Amino acid sequence: MKFCSNCAQPVALRQPEGDHLPRYVCDTCGTVHYQNPKLVVGCVPEYEGRILLCKRAIEPRLGYWTIPAGFMENGETTQDGARRESFEEALAEVEIGSLLAVVHVLHADQVHVMFRARLLEPRFGPSPESLEVQLYAEADVPWHDIAFRSVDFALRRYFEDRRGGVENHHFSAIDLRAPRA
Amino acid sequence: MKFCSNCAQPVALRQPEGDHLPRYVCDTCGTVHYQNPKLVVGCVPEYEGRILLCKRAIEPRLGYWTIPAGFMENGETTQDGARRESFEEALAEVEIGSLLAVVHVLHADQVHVMFRARLLEPRFGPSPESLEVQLYAEADVPWHDIAFRSVDFALRRYFEDRRGGVENHHFSAIDLRAPRA
Repeated sequence: MKFCSNCAQPVALRQPEGDHLPRYVCDTCGTVHYQNPKLVVGCVPEYEGRILLCKRAIEPRLGYWTIPAGFMENGETTQDGARRESFEEALAEVEIGSLLAVVHVLHADQVHVMFRARLLEPRFGPSPESLEVQLYAEADVPWHDIAFRSVDFALRRYFEDRRGGVENHHFSAIDLRAPRA
Repeated sequence: MKFCSNCAQPVALRQPEGDHLPRYVCDTCGTVHYQNPKLVVGCVPEYEGRILLCKRAIEPRLGYWTIPAGFMENGETTQDGARRESFEEALAEVEIGSLLAVVHVLHADQVHVMFRARLLEPRFGPSPESLEVQLYAEADVPWHDIAFRSVDFALRRYFEDRRGGVENHHFSAIDLRAPRA
């Protein structure tokens, strides 16, 4: 952020009075531009025991496999967003189920919220965001080619819980920031 | 948003190619300025059966009661944020427990994530953000003066679960947007 989105003057990074963190502040119009973590919402769609994965058609991690997921939009719930992403990325109609995982991706300022889901019909396919979409049995999941650590975490918990006959939710944090000097 | 925070030129609200929603777009430098829901994190601190509430010293809802909660910051987990807010708003040291509620506040583009918590010592007090801080037994909770519907929802589920001896998590959505014409 270099300029104020309200008045177009340059912003400064400094701690406002009474605050505890530096913020982008406009000294011309007084606006404080807060920056907060973004929510990424997704799901693990299951159909007759197999789960739906998408091979990414876009960066980052083009060519690697992931679950349908993406940035949550204003005006929707986390479940709405997970369902929307399933359709956008995999042309899949899903029914969202229980909460599976909340992963704090600290180096990216993101919170990934992932649900269990049921694929309603065995209909799905590639989209502008996915090169391939495929149902995988647990034994065939391409673990070495999973796009993101948060998705690896969620998938492992998914199968563990399924083997145990439970639907728990799991918190985790991933931090790839450089250590402070 | 009126101006591009990257290059200070005016932005236009329009649907970028391949997108499904209107965005603030800078036609000079090409930046798309996405706007996404913000996370509010909080907790219900309990001490010997009573819960800690704060009387708000700031708008909105000045003078009404709430749990310690506030906007999540970059670089922290939801639990970190809930713990931080307890100290900032109530000078209370808490240990965060299980997930209590996720409330989608659709008219405000916010997702409220609230946890159970344990107040470690009966030490707390007002802050620049709270006029009063007080421990309340369930029978004494000022239900008519609770600041936000999301907090009312979380508190009711809190006490229901406690009576039932369970710690479930609860999703809800609140939508006070005007109906579309």
